[in-house]
Amino acid sequence: MVNDEKFVEDIVDQDDNFSQWYNQVVRKAELADYAPVRGCMIIRPYGYALWENLQQKVDARFKETDVQNAYFPLLIPQSFLQKEAEHVEGFAPEVAWVTRGGGEELEEPLAIRPTSETIIGNSFSKWIQSYRDLPLLINQWANVMRWEKRTALFLRTSEFLWQEGHTAHRTPEEAEERTRLMLEVYRSFAEEDAAIPVIPGRKSENEKFAGALRTYSIEAMMGDGKALQSATSHNLGDNFARGFDIQFLDADSQRKYCHTTSWGMSTRMIGALIMVHGDKSGLILPPRLAPYQVVIVPIWRKEKEKEAVNELVNRVEKMFKGKVRVKVDRSENTPGWKYNEWEMRGVPLRMEIGPRDVQNNNVMLVRRDNRVKEPVSVDALEQRLPELLEEIQKALYQRALEFREQNTYTTDSYDEFKQIIAEKRGFVRVKWAEDSAAELAIKEETKATLRVIPFDQPEGGVQGKCIYTGKPATCEAIFARAY
Amino acid sequence: MVNDEKFVEDIVDQDDNFSQWYNQVVRKAELADYAPVRGCMIIRPYGYALWENLQQKVDARFKETDVQNAYFPLLIPQSFLQKEAEHVEGFAPEVAWVTRGGGEELEEPLAIRPTSETIIGNSFSKWIQSYRDLPLLINQWANVMRWEKRTALFLRTSEFLWQEGHTAHRTPEEAEERTRLMLEVYRSFAEEDAAIPVIPGRKSENEKFAGALRTYSIEAMMGDGKALQSATSHNLGDNFARGFDIQFLDADSQRKYCHTTSWGMSTRMIGALIMVHGDKSGLILPPRLAPYQVVIVPIWRKEKEKEAVNELVNRVEKMFKGKVRVKVDRSENTPGWKYNEWEMRGVPLRMEIGPRDVQNNNVMLVRRDNRVKEPVSVDALEQRLPELLEEIQKALYQRALEFREQNTYTTDSYDEFKQIIAEKRGFVRVKWAEDSAAELAIKEETKATLRVIPFDQPEGGVQGKCIYTGKPATCEAIFARAY
Repeated sequence: MVNDEKFVEDIVDQDDNFSQWYNQVVRKAELADYAPVRGCMIIRPYGYALWENLQQKVDARFKETDVQNAYFPLLIPQSFLQKEAEHVEGFAPEVAWVTRGGGEELEEPLAIRPTSETIIGNSFSKWIQSYRDLPLLINQWANVMRWEKRTALFLRTSEFLWQEGHTAHRTPEEAEERTRLMLEVYRSFAEEDAAIPVIPGRKSENEKFAGALRTYSIEAMMGDGKALQSATSHNLGDNFARGFDIQFLDADSQRKYCHTTSWGMSTRMIGALIMVHGDKSGLILPPRLAPYQVVIVPIWRKEKEKEAVNELVNRVEKMFKGKVRVKVDRSENTPGWKYNEWEMRGVPLRMEIGPRDVQNNNVMLVRRDNRVKEPVSVDALEQRLPELLEEIQKALYQRALEFREQNTYTTDSYDEFKQIIAEKRGFVRVKWAEDSAAELAIKEETKATLRVIPFDQPEGGVQGKCIYTGKPATCEAIFARAY
Repeated sequence: MVNDEKFVEDIVDQDDNFSQWYNQVVRKAELADYAPVRGCMIIRPYGYALWENLQQKVDARFKETDVQNAYFPLLIPQSFLQKEAEHVEGFAPEVAWVTRGGGEELEEPLAIRPTSETIIGNSFSKWIQSYRDLPLLINQWANVMRWEKRTALFLRTSEFLWQEGHTAHRTPEEAEERTRLMLEVYRSFAEEDAAIPVIPGRKSENEKFAGALRTYSIEAMMGDGKALQSATSHNLGDNFARGFDIQFLDADSQRKYCHTTSWGMSTRMIGALIMVHGDKSGLILPPRLAPYQVVIVPIWRKEKEKEAVNELVNRVEKMFKGKVRVKVDRSENTPGWKYNEWEMRGVPLRMEIGPRDVQNNNVMLVRRDNRVKEPVSVDALEQRLPELLEEIQKALYQRALEFREQNTYTTDSYDEFKQIIAEKRGFVRVKWAEDSAAELAIKEETKATLRVIPFDQPEGGVQGKCIYTGKPATCEAIFARAY
C-alpha cells in the first residue's frame, strides 16, 4: 500500500481504556485476527514469528534439562477424562466433543484435548516397567481446546497453542524437584528472554490445577496493574498414576505408583509481552523474541541519491545476515509512514540511512523503548548494534520491574486492602492464614484473587495476623485483579 | 534395562512380509505407537526427533522462497466446506464433526480440518485488497484429521501432522510457477535430505486434489516396489477464490479473482524413510535427518580399563558438541546388545572405543548402511567423521536410485503390463493417452494406479499408441501399486 498519511489512526490511550488499546494493537500490528469460529483466533505471520522465537528459546531450555518432545492424539475418549475425579470435574464444562466421524455416530464421544494428562498417562502406563525407565521426561507442542464464553485474542481463546510437559518419577521428592525445576525454566525464560519480571510461587488450593497435589506459577504484572498467570507447573502426586495405573517395579522388587508432574506455557505469553512492554504508540518487543530486531529505513529525495543509499543499505543488511534479524523496508511508503508503522509493530531498533549518512559513513540508530537516537559509524556497527539490542533487552526488564514495584502495596488492614483494589492498580501483598473460604469471600467482595504465595517469604517466618480472618498468619500472599 | 540377550527377537524378513517388517520396525525402534483412539497414533520421542529434523530442513527451504508461517483454527464451519463443490464431495466422507461444546449442542457442526483451503481462503479474502498485497505466501504446521477405515502408523492415520502451504497470486502464470516451485522444494528436500529419489510430475484427473485445477506430486518407490506419494502441490486456479471471494483491485482498477495454490507434506514422509532405506536389521536413517548421527559404544572388560575408555569417550563427545548429533550409550547393557539396538534404530555411524583404541589413539567407525569398518585416528576424526556421514548420505540415495531403476519396467503390451504388476514389484512406464475410464479399468483389473505423468518425457513428444486404448499416446505415465 502506498500511503502518505499517518499509518494508524490514533491508538486509544492505555490509561483511558487498556483493553481497547490491547485489541487495537493486536489487530493493527497484524499479530492475530478473530476467526469465523466463535472464540478461535488466527495467528498472523507477525504473531506467529513471535511464537516461533518463543518456542525456540523455551524448547532449548527444556532440552537442556533432558526433556524429549513427542506427540499424542488430539482426541481423548470420554472414559479417560473420567478416571481422575477432580480432573473431569474441572474440565468437563469446557470440553468440545466429537460425536460423528467418517459418516457414522461414534459409540463413545471423543473430547478434543483440553490438556493431555489422561491420554499421556495411558501411554506412560505402557512405557514404564522398571525404575530404570524413570524419570520419563516428555513434552509436546500442541493445540488444545477449552470452550470459552468470553474470549480475548491470545489471552483467552477456545483453541490455543501451548506446550505441555509430562514427567514420571520414582519418588515424591524427585517429582517435586522436577515441578520446581520447570517453574525455574519458565522464570528464567520470562525474565531473560521475554524481559518480564515474574513472581514465582505456589497457588492456593482454590486456584490449583484440577487433579494436582500442588500448583506453582509465575505471575506477572501487566501495564494496567492486573496480574497474568504466565506459566504453571503442577506436582500431580500419584493421583494420575493411580487413575491410569502408572506403576514400576522398584529395585526392592515392589510394584509402586509413579509420581507425575505436568507444566505448561501457551500463546497467552504473547498477550503478556504486549501488555507489559507496549506504550501509546503500540508494541515494544524485547530484542531476544522480536521477529525483526532491526528495521532499516532507506531515505532519499532525489533519484540520484537512491543508488548510494541502497548500496549502503545492502551492505549493512549483508553484514548482519544470519546474526541479527534485520528487515529492510523497501516499500514505496514515505519514511515517516515507515517510522510509525514499525514503531507500532514494536521493532526494538530502527536504522535510518540517508544521503548524509552515506557521506559520513554513518547510520542513525533509534531505540523504540526510549526513542534515543545514536549515530554510529558503519565501521563500529558490527559491534555496537548487538550491544544496543542487549541494552534495550535489559532496559525493558528494568522498566517493567520498576513499574511492578511502584504498583505493589502492602497493608495489614482489610479496609485499606479494599480501597487499594478499588481505587488503585497493582498487587497487594498481605499476611495470610491459608483459608479457602476467606479467599472466596475476598474475591466476592473485591474481585481480587489470590495470585500466588511467593517463594520469597520473610526470613524466620511471618509474624502477625491474617488480613481477613485475624488468625495467625502462615505466609505472605499476593492478591490482585487478574486476567 | 540390563539385558545380555540379543535385543530384538528376529525381525521378520522384508521379502517374506514387508508390511509386517514395517510394523515391527516402527514399534521396536520406538518411533510410534497405536493410540487408544482408533486410527490415531502416538509419535514417540525418537520418531518425533526425526519429524523435528525434517521440519527444520523443510521450513528453512520454504523461508528461502519467502513463505511465512501462520496458524489457522482447527475447526471449520460446515458451511465453509460446502462452498467449493468438488472439495466437499472429496472430503465430506472423511470428516470428524464436533457437535457439542461447553455443555451445549452447537447450532452448526464444526469439522476438524481435513485440510485448510476453506478457512484460509476466508482469511485471504479479508487480507487481500490490492495487487500490492500479492503474492501472499503462507504456510502452517498443524495436525489434521481424516477418518480412515484402514490405518498404518505414519502411512495412513486418522490424525496426522503436516504442513500445508497456501498462496494467492495475481495471474494464472504466477500461480502455476509457485505450484511448480514448491514441488521442486519437496523434490530437493526428498533427494538431498531424505536421500529418497523421487519422480516429479503431474497427477491424472482421477488422482488430483478435490477442487484443484492440477495436482503435481513426487512419487517414490518403497523397498517392496510399491509407490508412495510423498508430497503434493496443487494449482487451484480460481476455484477457491470464487468460492471464498478472494478478489483484488488490479493496477487497471478492475476487481479480479486471485489464483491460489496449496501444497503439503506430512508425517507420511517418515514412513517413506523407513521403507526406502531399511533392511532386515531394522532402520537405516539418512545422516541429515537422523536424531543421532553417531552412537558411541564404550567397551571395557576390567574395571581398570574403564577410566581410560571413558576419558576418550568424553573427549570425542565434546569434540563434536553442537556440530554432530552424538549419542553416547552409557547404559549397563553389553556392547553386543548396544550394537544390535542402535543398528535396529538406524543410527548411520557407530563408534566403538575400547582399551586397545585408547592405546592406539584410535576409534573404530562402523557404517550402518554397508557395515564397513574403518579405524580412524583421534587426530583425524574431526575431519573424517563428517565426511563419512556425507558418504553415507550419498550412498543411501544411490542405492535407492539403483533399486528403483532395477525395478522399473517399460512395455507396450497390456498383457505384459498385467504380468509385471502381478508377478514382479516396481513401476511400469507406458505410453498413455490420458483417459480416466481406461485408468479406472486398469485399476479394477490390476490394482495398479496411475502414479504420475513424469515431467521427464521423451524429447520431441511420445510416438506410438496408448497401452490400453490404442489411441495415439500423448505422454508416458507411470503405473504401480501404491500405499
